[in-house]
Amino acid sequence: MAAQEAASPVQLCRIMRPDDANVAGNVHGGIILKMIEEAGCLVGTRHCNTQNGDSCMAALVRVEKTEFLAPVFIGEVLHVSADITYTSKHSLEVQVNVMAENILTGNKKLANKAALWYVPCSLKNVNKIMEVPPIKYASVEQQEVGRERYEAQKLERMETKARIEEVLPPLPNPEQYTVGFSQSTLIHLVGPSDCTLYNYVHGGVTMKLMDEVAGIVAARHCNTNIVTASVEAINFHRKIMNGCVVTLVGRLTFVSNKSMEIEVLVDAASLMEPETEKYRAVSAFFTYISLGKDKKPLPVPPLKTDGEAEQRRFEEGKARYLQNKAKRFEEKERQM
Amino acid sequence: MAAQEAASPVQLCRIMRPDDANVAGNVHGGIILKMIEEAGCLVGTRHCNTQNGDSCMAALVRVEKTEFLAPVFIGEVLHVSADITYTSKHSLEVQVNVMAENILTGNKKLANKAALWYVPCSLKNVNKIMEVPPIKYASVEQQEVGRERYEAQKLERMETKARIEEVLPPLPNPEQYTVGFSQSTLIHLVGPSDCTLYNYVHGGVTMKLMDEVAGIVAARHCNTNIVTASVEAINFHRKIMNGCVVTLVGRLTFVSNKSMEIEVLVDAASLMEPETEKYRAVSAFFTYISLGKDKKPLPVPPLKTDGEAEQRRFEEGKARYLQNKAKRFEEKERQM
Amino acid sequence: MAAQEAASPVQLCRIMRPDDANVAGNVHGGIILKMIEEAGCLVGTRHCNTQNGDSCMAALVRVEKTEFLAPVFIGEVLHVSADITYTSKHSLEVQVNVMAENILTGNKKLANKAALWYVPCSLKNVNKIMEVPPIKYASVEQQEVGRERYEAQKLERMETKARIEEVLPPLPNPEQYTVGFSQSTLIHLVGPSDCTLYNYVHGGVTMKLMDEVAGIVAARHCNTNIVTASVEAINFHRKIMNGCVVTLVGRLTFVSNKSMEIEVLVDAASLMEPETEKYRAVSAFFTYISLGKDKKPLPVPPLKTDGEAEQRRFEEGKARYLQNKAKRFEEKERQM
Repeated sequence: MAAQEAASPVQLCRIMRPDDANVAGNVHGGIILKMIEEAGCLVGTRHCNTQNGDSCMAALVRVEKTEFLAPVFIGEVLHVSADITYTSKHSLEVQVNVMAENILTGNKKLANKAALWYVPCSLKNVNKIMEVPPIKYASVEQQEVGRERYEAQKLERMETKARIEEVLPPLPNPEQYTVGFSQSTLIHLVGPSDCTLYNYVHGGVTMKLMDEVAGIVAARHCNTNIVTASVEAINFHRKIMNGCVVTLVGRLTFVSNKSMEIEVLVDAASLMEPETEKYRAVSAFFTYISLGKDKKPLPVPPLKTDGEAEQRRFEEGKARYLQNKAKRFEEKERQM
Repeated sequence: MAAQEAASPVQLCRIMRPDDANVAGNVHGGIILKMIEEAGCLVGTRHCNTQNGDSCMAALVRVEKTEFLAPVFIGEVLHVSADITYTSKHSLEVQVNVMAENILTGNKKLANKAALWYVPCSLKNVNKIMEVPPIKYASVEQQEVGRERYEAQKLERMETKARIEEVLPPLPNPEQYTVGFSQSTLIHLVGPSDCTLYNYVHGGVTMKLMDEVAGIVAARHCNTNIVTASVEAINFHRKIMNGCVVTLVGRLTFVSNKSMEIEVLVDAASLMEPETEKYRAVSAFFTYISLGKDKKPLPVPPLKTDGEAEQRRFEEGKARYLQNKAKRFEEKERQM
Repeated sequence: MAAQEAASPVQLCRIMRPDDANVAGNVHGGIILKMIEEAGCLVGTRHCNTQNGDSCMAALVRVEKTEFLAPVFIGEVLHVSADITYTSKHSLEVQVNVMAENILTGNKKLANKAALWYVPCSLKNVNKIMEVPPIKYASVEQQEVGRERYEAQKLERMETKARIEEVLPPLPNPEQYTVGFSQSTLIHLVGPSDCTLYNYVHGGVTMKLMDEVAGIVAARHCNTNIVTASVEAINFHRKIMNGCVVTLVGRLTFVSNKSMEIEVLVDAASLMEPETEKYRAVSAFFTYISLGKDKKPLPVPPLKTDGEAEQRRFEEGKARYLQNKAKRFEEKERQM
C-alpha cells in the first residue's frame, strides 16, 4: 500500500463526575485508562478504514508501562489526544496525552502519557487481521526510532505468555498484612455498553475493572486513601465477548516503603459454556500509593509473605521496583 | 398526630435498554427490584415530611416475598406505581405494582407486585427514627388487615436475625453441579450514585447487586438463559455507607426439577477500617428458572451436595419450596 | 383516519443524583432536556402505534425554544409530563412540563416547559414516514391555534438549512476572552445505551451532549458556576446511527452583560468510513448565565471578537438576544 497521512489526531474530552472518583475526590486511574483506550481505538479504526478492503476495527493488543503524573479531581475536564506514531504491516502504535484542565482557574496539568498497540480485525471475521496502511514519517530517524519500539514490544509480547498460575482462595481468617488478607475477587457480567460494535469488550473497559479490583486490594492493605501511581506493560492475549463472566483477582506481590504492587489476573468464561472453558484473557501489575489528608504519600505497612510462591513473587516485584527506580533516575540525569 | 391522607401515589416509568437485560433480551430482576424500591422510597419520604419535626428519609427495612409474574424485554416501558397502605407509629408499608407496556402494540402485563416496609430516619441523625404520620383508611376492615400484615412481619423480623454463617471459599477444582462449582463472589465499591442524599446505599441498589451475583450462580450451574422467578422476604439489618466495599457471595442451596434457590449473603466494610470490622448487612434467597430458546422452562441439573452443612441448607430450601408450592395451590383453589 | 383520543399523557419521574449535576449541585440542563425528549418519544410512539399499519417509532425533528425557569438540585425529584397537543398528517406536537419537587419540604416549582415535534418512522424502513392518527381537540379554536404553531415551525424548518460553516481549530495560545480561548470540542462514540431500539441516537442524548460542551465553553469564559438559561429552537436534520463518532464543537457567539450565547455544531461520521464522510447532524444556540455563591447572576466578561466572521456571528447573536428580550417584555405586558 502507498504511504498516507495518518488519520487526524483524535481529541476526547469529558468532565469528571462524582462516580468517576473515590470518596476523597481522586478520579480513579481506571477511568483515565478507559478514556485513553477509547481515543486510541477511534484513531486506529479511522486510520485502517481509509483503504479498500474489509471494514475493520482496531483491537487493543498491548499498553506500554504508563505513569499517572498528576492527580485528577471531580469537576476537572480531561482532554485525551491520540495520534498514530508508527505502523507495521499488521499493527499500529498510538501515543496518547492526557491533560487535566481546571475550567475554573484555567490551570492545565499533564496527567498521563501512554503508548498503545492495536491490530485491525476484519468485521466479517474477527479473527482475520487486516493490513495497516503505512503512515508518512516526518524524518527517517523518526521512522527508525518507531521501528525500534515496535521490535522491542514484539519481542516482549512473544516472550510473555499469559501468566497461567492458578490463584488459590485465601485461607479462612487470614492475618492482617498477609497477601491473603487483602486478596480480592471481582466478578463482572459483560453487557452491551462494555463492548465494541463487534461484541467484544473494549480493552479500556477491562483496564477499568482491573484498576477497580487492584484499588480494593490496596485499600484493604492500608485502610487509607489510595491512588494508582503506574501500570506495567499489559498484553491482551485473548478477546472477551459480550455475555461473558469476567473474574478478576487482585493480590499484593510487593510492598516498598511507600508503594504497593498488585498483580491482577483476568479470566473470562461464557455463561453458556461449562466453567471448565474459562481462559486467562489478560494480566497486569498495578502500583498504588497511599495518601494522607494533606495529599502527601504515607508509609505503607510491610507485607507478610507466606510460603515459597509468595516469596518468589515478592522478589520479582522488588526487581521491577528497583529497575523502575533506576530508569527514573537515569531519565532525570539525562534531563539535567 | 392527626390522621392525614397518604402522600399521593408515586409513578415511575422508564424504557428498558440493552444494559438492563441479559443477552437473551430478558430484563434482569434486579433492575425491576431497584425501580420498585426507588418508588417506595419516594412515596415514603414524601409522606413522612408532611408534618413538623426533623426532615427525614424513608429507609428500607424489609421487602416481602415477591414473584416475577411475566418476563420484561428490552424496549418495553416499565410503569411502577407505589402507594402507602399501612402506617404504624414508626414504620409504613408501601405496595407497589409493576406493569410492562409494549408501546408498539399497546399490550400491558403485570410484571410484579411487591410490599415494602420503611422507617423514617432523621436527617440530623441517621439512627434516630421519626414518627410516621398516620394515614386514613377507607374502612375499619382495611386498617385491621393492614395491622395483621404489620404484626406478622414484625414477628418475623424479630425472629430472623442476620444469618451469621461464614461462607467458606470453595475447594480448588470443584466438580460440576456441586455447590462449590457455581459459588460466586462479587465485590462492589459503593459510589455516590448508589446512595441516598444521606450517604447510605439505597436498598434497591443492594437488591440489584444481589440479583446480579445470584444470576451468575444460576447460569454457572446450568449454562442456559436464566431468569429471576421470585425472591423470599428480605430484612435489611444494617445500613451500608458511601465508600464501603460490599462483598456479595451467592451459593446454591436447593434445586428442584425446574428451579434453583440461591442464598446471597451481603457483607460490608469501610475501606478506611480494618477488614475485621466487616459486618453482615443483609441476606436473601433468590429463585431462578432456566429457559430454553422457546422461552419455556428447562429441567435443571440436580445439585450435588457435600457434607452436613450443605445437606442441611438443601433440606431447609426444600421446605421453603414445598411451602411456596402449597401456598400457590391454596391461592388457586380460593380463586376458583 | 378517524380522529381519536390522544394517547394518555406520559409521566416520567426520577430523583436527581450527584452525576446529574455540576460541582455546585445544579442539575445540568442537558439532563432535563434528555428526560423531556424521553417522555415526548414515549407518548408519540404510543400514539402512532394505535392504528393498523407498520409499527413505528417517533423520531424527534424539532424542539422549540425553551427556557429553564428555575434551578434544579441534587436530591430533588423531577416530574416530566408529556401530552400530544397537535397532529398533522405526518407529524405531531408534544408539550412537556417539568416540575421539580423537594420531597423533604413538599415544595414544587416549574422548571421547564417545552414543545417538541416528532415524525413516526416505520420500523421496517427508518426512512419511511408513517401517517399520524389525528387527535380530537377540545375546541375548534384549540385546533386552529395548533395549526398556526404547526405552520410557523414548518416554515422555519424549511428556511433553516443545516448551518454548514466549517469550524476552524483555534490558533495556538489564544488570548483570554477571545472566541478561540473557550472554544471546545467533545467527541463521543455512540453506544447501545444512547440509541433507540432502531439503532439511531435519541434526540435527547444528543441534546445532553450539546449542553455538556456548551457548559464547558461557558465555564472557560467566565471561570464560575454556570447554568443553562435557555436553548433556541433546534432542528434535527439527520439521524445519527449506533457506532458513529459524534464530534461536538461549542464556541461563543455573543455575550451580553449577564449572559453568554454558545453555538454548538454536531457532526457525525461512521467509524468505518473516511473522515470526509462526516455530516452535520444538528446545530443549536445555548444561552448560559454565571452564578455567584449567593446563586445570583454575575456580570460576564465581554467577548473579544476577531475578524469578520466572528463579528457577524456576534451581531446575529445580539439580534436574537434583543428579540428575546422584547418578547419577554411583551409577555409581561400582556400578563399585567
